Amino acid sequence: MAKGILENNENYQPGLSIDCVIFGFHDNQLKVLLIKTPYEDKWSLPGGFVPIDQDIDTAAVTVLNKRTGIEGIFLRQFATFGRVKRNDKHFENKILEHLKIPEKARKWFTQRFVTIGYYALVDFLKAIPQKENNKGSIEWIDHKEVPELILDHKEILDKALHTLRIELNLMPIGYNLLPEKFTMPELQKLYETILDKKLDRRNFLRKINNIGILNKLEEKKSNVAHKAPNLYVFDKDKYEEVLKNGLNQGW
Amino acid sequence: MAKGILENNENYQPGLSIDCVIFGFHDNQLKVLLIKTPYEDKWSLPGGFVPIDQDIDTAAVTVLNKRTGIEGIFLRQFATFGRVKRNDKHFENKILEHLKIPEKARKWFTQRFVTIGYYALVDFLKAIPQKENNKGSIEWIDHKEVPELILDHKEILDKALHTLRIELNLMPIGYNLLPEKFTMPELQKLYETILDKKLDRRNFLRKINNIGILNKLEEKKSNVAHKAPNLYVFDKDKYEEVLKNGLNQGW
Repeated sequence: MAKGILENNENYQPGLSIDCVIFGFHDNQLKVLLIKTPYEDKWSLPGGFVPIDQDIDTAAVTVLNKRTGIEGIFLRQFATFGRVKRNDKHFENKILEHLKIPEKARKWFTQRFVTIGYYALVDFLKAIPQKENNKGSIEWIDHKEVPELILDHKEILDKALHTLRIELNLMPIGYNLLPEKFTMPELQKLYETILDKKLDRRNFLRKINNIGILNKLEEKKSNVAHKAPNLYVFDKDKYEEVLKNGLNQGW
Repeated sequence: MAKGILENNENYQPGLSIDCVIFGFHDNQLKVLLIKTPYEDKWSLPGGFVPIDQDIDTAAVTVLNKRTGIEGIFLRQFATFGRVKRNDKHFENKILEHLKIPEKARKWFTQRFVTIGYYALVDFLKAIPQKENNKGSIEWIDHKEVPELILDHKEILDKALHTLRIELNLMPIGYNLLPEKFTMPELQKLYETILDKKLDRRNFLRKINNIGILNKLEEKKSNVAHKAPNLYVFDKDKYEEVLKNGLNQGW
């Protein structure tokens, strides 16, 4: 947590925080970036407060960078969490004690907080978190093996995953997550990993081709015994266009 | 605006507001519920502040009811708006003056505000707004004839409409917006009105039937010359099921 806020919390929006759910994909694994809290045996999403002079979208980038050292990620706002009982007095007291927060700042930290959720999907081999100053460790953890999280962070994580899965029906994904040249099974496996279910090969092929963002290459995958699979690349212009306008498989 | 907040703003979450975009459909018209501001020649979305002891979802219901008298509407959170420059000093001064806000409360009203957007789609003949105490009039206005709005309310409205259109691909709609028994052209017209475009009749028929939420009735529409169209009702159980699980026309 930023030292500055202890002394000068008028520089931050009161009662408002940001939490980031960073999903990482690589080689058919879907992970999520979590921080081990030093004050109890739980983990948390990377989160923080909103500088009074920053747009919330900018603040999300700031928060993620401060907590993890990661930059250059496009964060998408997905929901705001504001149940009254998400504020947990027991938990607050542990933090206050651990961080040795002075009396005069306690009121600020223990006020009711509403938090805005942001999420992103990146390649976890390319987004390398740095250790925090205050010795909390940061790790990419498999999304099926998420340990106990503080406050309502599990709910925030679940909602982000739900949103990501819905986004698959609205947006193309895969760029920056797959090798530049990839096979159809590799692309299908990306979708299967995020959706956590098997997809029918022929249906997938038909639907993905309908979107019109793939170029099939002449060359085939080498070093493969027997039947070499076709290689594809994303058509970057069409990909960007669909990203902007949506898949529009709708009405 | 609630009188109470002028005297006791500790009962409200600081720097956080809620704005509601209420769409109304009836007879192939899509309208939006707007309030005429008494302090300048602009309109606003019905909005207000978050009671410190209410979940934000509950606060949205409270806010809508206080500003319009409308109740019993399911409000869906869609986005939070937090650009720094959405806070307009010129506008604030007008409100402060108009509402005769005492000096000691001014700091609270002029702090930076982030606002959470909620939206709903209702039948505008069934949701009847009441006049506000402070003489601002409330009206259902055609979504294509929206007058100038305060602050970033136009952006909030546009985002809500965009979200509503995307939701058409994810959820069934129409229940409570159409007569109990309706024709296929009536249902198609609902979609066309929201999407603001013509749809192909046969495609629409195929897609809507695939969802499996309609029951075709034996009886046909009466009082119609020549070919009487078929009548349909929603299968409420299936409708609820799809509402819960999503259309799942996806992967």
